[in-house]
Amino acid sequence: MDIREEFLTSYERIRDEVLSDLKSEEFQLPDEIFERVRFCVDYNVPHGKLNRGLTVVEAYRASRGGPPIEALSETERQDAFLLGWCVEWLQAFFLVADDVMDGSKTRRGRPCYYLLDNIGLSAVNDSLLLEAHIYRLLRNRFRGRNEDLELYTDLMELFLSVTYSTEIGQMLDLSSSTGSEVRLEDFTEQNLLRIYRLKTSTYSFFLPVALGMRLAGVRNAAHYRIAREVLLEMGIYFQAQDDFLDCFGDPSVTGKVGTDIEERKCTWLIVEAIKCCTSAQKEILRTCYGREDAACVARVKQLYHELGLPQRFQLYEQKMYEQMQQKLGNLDADFPVDALNFLLKSIYKRSK
Amino acid sequence: MDIREEFLTSYERIRDEVLSDLKSEEFQLPDEIFERVRFCVDYNVPHGKLNRGLTVVEAYRASRGGPPIEALSETERQDAFLLGWCVEWLQAFFLVADDVMDGSKTRRGRPCYYLLDNIGLSAVNDSLLLEAHIYRLLRNRFRGRNEDLELYTDLMELFLSVTYSTEIGQMLDLSSSTGSEVRLEDFTEQNLLRIYRLKTSTYSFFLPVALGMRLAGVRNAAHYRIAREVLLEMGIYFQAQDDFLDCFGDPSVTGKVGTDIEERKCTWLIVEAIKCCTSAQKEILRTCYGREDAACVARVKQLYHELGLPQRFQLYEQKMYEQMQQKLGNLDADFPVDALNFLLKSIYKRSK
Repeated sequence: MDIREEFLTSYERIRDEVLSDLKSEEFQLPDEIFERVRFCVDYNVPHGKLNRGLTVVEAYRASRGGPPIEALSETERQDAFLLGWCVEWLQAFFLVADDVMDGSKTRRGRPCYYLLDNIGLSAVNDSLLLEAHIYRLLRNRFRGRNEDLELYTDLMELFLSVTYSTEIGQMLDLSSSTGSEVRLEDFTEQNLLRIYRLKTSTYSFFLPVALGMRLAGVRNAAHYRIAREVLLEMGIYFQAQDDFLDCFGDPSVTGKVGTDIEERKCTWLIVEAIKCCTSAQKEILRTCYGREDAACVARVKQLYHELGLPQRFQLYEQKMYEQMQQKLGNLDADFPVDALNFLLKSIYKRSK
Repeated sequence: MDIREEFLTSYERIRDEVLSDLKSEEFQLPDEIFERVRFCVDYNVPHGKLNRGLTVVEAYRASRGGPPIEALSETERQDAFLLGWCVEWLQAFFLVADDVMDGSKTRRGRPCYYLLDNIGLSAVNDSLLLEAHIYRLLRNRFRGRNEDLELYTDLMELFLSVTYSTEIGQMLDLSSSTGSEVRLEDFTEQNLLRIYRLKTSTYSFFLPVALGMRLAGVRNAAHYRIAREVLLEMGIYFQAQDDFLDCFGDPSVTGKVGTDIEERKCTWLIVEAIKCCTSAQKEILRTCYGREDAACVARVKQLYHELGLPQRFQLYEQKMYEQMQQKLGNLDADFPVDALNFLLKSIYKRSK
């Protein structure tokens, strides 16, 4: 069994661990509500690409000097898997809540959770339950180990502080898309990078690696600073891909129908377009960007083509990849560089 | 200056403490967004009755043997105030999110936050920020004190586990009010008490007292068990009052227009009504309860009057009060009984 398969196999046990609480005397949940929580977890947690979760395992292995997975003890493996799944739970929490706020339609090839029968706005509370599960899981697993309260506290703090970054990033993202008028002057590279860094890179790239490092016992603050710097850059590249795929990806591959243009999102494409368009083209953007109107959306896409954005994106992608490979090559030997390579390979030229 | 005034005075300093993070290099928030976070905090956090926050201070004093507030050191006072405000922050987080899910109109005499201009569903993310602020505040204040990592960890765990209870309670509450048909058989005393216990009593009654006890250094698990038992009962009484006031209170005093009947909520009134109504009256409830129709709502209220629910509530209130006074009288001398008395007095026969 390879790592991905073993990781996936651990899901049900971890889900049952967190749900077993609900049958305890404290909650005494009726069967019907219990089933609803299970459905919410099963629908939202395990259907992603699992790169975030697997990265925790890879970062743990790399920080331990790269032993094969079989060389780890059962406890070590299960701890790494648990933290990996906690990141997938965090992702599920964000996606359920964000889809409500963004009014999205599809996610991972299926209807968004809040659009299902009898869910609606109660999805907000369900997303909060998913968030809370993380801390139940951490407590069950790590609190008992009294000899290492620092590990438990550090893990909680990592999740809490990364959650805050993501929420601030979501706020910036939403603020670019509200108000009655489109404000092209907000679509600057500075704003874009800030949203990328806070909203996605921190939880998708920094968090999994930091968790693996911390579980392996890395306490050197400088190591986390360097990891953060490299990983946030990788996350920026990843998010630019996301923006590109939202507009130019194949929905049957990506699993979602892009709506960034309608939603007036601050994306790599709109920032790039504003950088290189003529003032006549800018007027088209001012008129058509951020409207729920198929003709307007088509006009923006056409303009993106006219400006050669697909080709520009290819150049950007190549440049970023080379730049990051160079950075990884310069890292200290005692750094979990294999984990970073794993991540970089898993996203380079991705189509979903 | 009395305790309430001093507590209220500490608000701005604590708010500025949590907001100062946002100007740091990590976030570099633009002024406009910074102002929005401040507005969100100011609109939602400090306008409640503050009983929960003040209870932390009272429970801390009582657990220390009841010194006057002036006898406490500046650090001790500020720690208690901070935890008190963290409970108010938690309350704000729940109210903002619940109002979105319930489609409420007014809160504390003003429009619900999500109904304000340019807020809408982004209130969901704002509620998450309010939640996250709690852990920023705890970290800033308690993490540095390396000699007492246990205190910091216990405080985080208290907030996290109480948050989970509340969310499970909200789920139960929402589930009674969804689906296309009203199901009178769900309105049982067992379901009602479960919702009361999980959704409100745990965070409003148990949490503030437990925080005060823990800050004072109480580590005896039995003390927390007893406190929990008494406080959850007090919370049940409080929530029954809430249900009564939702229907029979004066909106100019309570600050909100009740919508429990329209929203098909599981309340003290509907459970009591089902217990004592005739089968003809039950049919009226089946037809009229949980409908967005003024005539139906009026018919339910009239039925509540016909069944003498206002008088029944008075008897219930008297009985609960005496029962709790008796329990408080039987507690050990080393128990923070003054804090419980403070709470009981602050809610007995309240009109808002």
